[in-house]
Amino acid sequence: MREGELIDRIDRAFRHRSEVSREVRLGIGDDAALFRPRPDREMILTCDWFLEGTHFLREKHPPDSVGWKCLARAVSDIAAMGGVPRCFLLSLALPETHTGSWLDEFLAGLGRGSRRFRCVLAGGDTTRQRQISMNVTVVADVPTGRAVLRSGAGPGELIYVSGRLGEAELGLRVLRQSRRLGNAKSVLTRKHLYPEPRLALGQWLREKRLAGSMMDLSDGLSSDLSRLCAASGVGACVESGAIPCLRHPDMARKHGLDPLRLALHGGDDYELLFTVPLRKRKLLPRAFQGIPLTPIGTITGESKLVLRDENGRERLLEARGWDPFRKSGA
Amino acid sequence: MREGELIDRIDRAFRHRSEVSREVRLGIGDDAALFRPRPDREMILTCDWFLEGTHFLREKHPPDSVGWKCLARAVSDIAAMGGVPRCFLLSLALPETHTGSWLDEFLAGLGRGSRRFRCVLAGGDTTRQRQISMNVTVVADVPTGRAVLRSGAGPGELIYVSGRLGEAELGLRVLRQSRRLGNAKSVLTRKHLYPEPRLALGQWLREKRLAGSMMDLSDGLSSDLSRLCAASGVGACVESGAIPCLRHPDMARKHGLDPLRLALHGGDDYELLFTVPLRKRKLLPRAFQGIPLTPIGTITGESKLVLRDENGRERLLEARGWDPFRKSGA
Repeated sequence: MREGELIDRIDRAFRHRSEVSREVRLGIGDDAALFRPRPDREMILTCDWFLEGTHFLREKHPPDSVGWKCLARAVSDIAAMGGVPRCFLLSLALPETHTGSWLDEFLAGLGRGSRRFRCVLAGGDTTRQRQISMNVTVVADVPTGRAVLRSGAGPGELIYVSGRLGEAELGLRVLRQSRRLGNAKSVLTRKHLYPEPRLALGQWLREKRLAGSMMDLSDGLSSDLSRLCAASGVGACVESGAIPCLRHPDMARKHGLDPLRLALHGGDDYELLFTVPLRKRKLLPRAFQGIPLTPIGTITGESKLVLRDENGRERLLEARGWDPFRKSGA
Repeated sequence: MREGELIDRIDRAFRHRSEVSREVRLGIGDDAALFRPRPDREMILTCDWFLEGTHFLREKHPPDSVGWKCLARAVSDIAAMGGVPRCFLLSLALPETHTGSWLDEFLAGLGRGSRRFRCVLAGGDTTRQRQISMNVTVVADVPTGRAVLRSGAGPGELIYVSGRLGEAELGLRVLRQSRRLGNAKSVLTRKHLYPEPRLALGQWLREKRLAGSMMDLSDGLSSDLSRLCAASGVGACVESGAIPCLRHPDMARKHGLDPLRLALHGGDDYELLFTVPLRKRKLLPRAFQGIPLTPIGTITGESKLVLRDENGRERLLEARGWDPFRKSGA
């Protein structure tokens, strides 16, 4: 297959884009994409790797999930700032052997994501490589000066997370133990294979000015909270009993895993981590569109992360989530 | 090395950005980058792979050249539309062994490019991988509706190229035959290692409305002209004697290479290919800022590419430039 044919196929898979967005004047196939933002909006740009061996396994992850997830991960960064996705660029490197049905299924998953997140394909680059790799750049907008940053947390603010933590990590463990391609319909692996970026929640928190700081949980609570605190120049005290772990903890124990450890250090949840000033606490519902919003601790003025158990015993919370430069392989 | 350290190092290498651009409100280290364009400007977005084995060789290409070139290639796409680069995102995948002096030299080359092209680092993503890979997204702007597209060529327009063609391909051949890391100072390999995107020329052609269509020559004249013609729904007749080949053709012959073949099918020149309506021909100088501008043929209404030699003999010009899905390796 020639590069031109590959580009044509990608183009055909995204024909819906012209109906969704008139701002994308030029799409894939020209040198670059043109995008016309409104004058009172800022652009948000983000890019994300999605690499075979590091972020997914060829023999375990269905191509449809690879397509969905490579876009969902980047869109989650937009959600974490309260932004509204507009368009994305796809850089795709594939071996010759994967330009047939694998590519079709990949594009189907990516196309579903594109429609769900209302984020249209605006361009990209393709090349041949033995290893399957993607890089996705998402462009989003947000009212000028209103993006929610991770550097805005202040002492005394409550720390919240959306959803339940550790489900995606459990799914990954289950997938790695299995001998087959992941089943898209299994409840155990669904959150790992098809994460849902919390776009509506992020935008709502930004509109209502409820969050002092925000980021998405991609690498695990312990690592991501540590980054939020470092960016804000603060510390945190987290109540271990308050963390929303797996709904059915037995599922973890059956696989020899501890639900609290999964919630603290497991990656790929793509839930939102955000802080709320005490006086705004009452404005926050217990759930938003069915997604639980749970206070798990408090921002402190000390530069350390503390985990407090139900008996009041405290210990330092180490950042032990996902770090590609520490861990090896997926 | 942890990912955070790597990001810090990249951040430090780009400290100059705050002086250059106040529009980049958030840089690397947060979820995403914020960019505030002016109301009357369009954004141009482009992304480009730069992969070990496909686009460069670890043992042959100096890391400084890899840094320069991964940005120059993407910026060349912006030049080809007459755009003005504003910021870029860098996605970098590295093996643990290359986070030391290799990374320092890579960032030095990238930093020089960033300053030269006035294109500031706005964000990115890093990960670990055995193979060295980059993906660069460039954001640029251009007055609304004024970008020069490759689809604008009409029959009768003259076909122009900037500079000389085939030098970069010759440099690659020399590099592959040598046993050492490429020498940054060698005239033979300079254009291959440190290409200069034709930003000022592209912007000037756009401002003066001289070019009906334009693209950059990244994969070789035969392949790129074929793409320009396909996008415009036209054909072309190229005079082989008019093509600006190597200044010193003996250098090619010494390596067993034909200067005309190098110019027709050699990649990586990053010169501009553009078409000019006949009535505007006199407005075009023979050189722009020292770079020759050479008419090499005419756009035709037929859907084929023809090469005419100095005796008037015609033959079909086949697209035989670089295509990652046809050729193997760099």
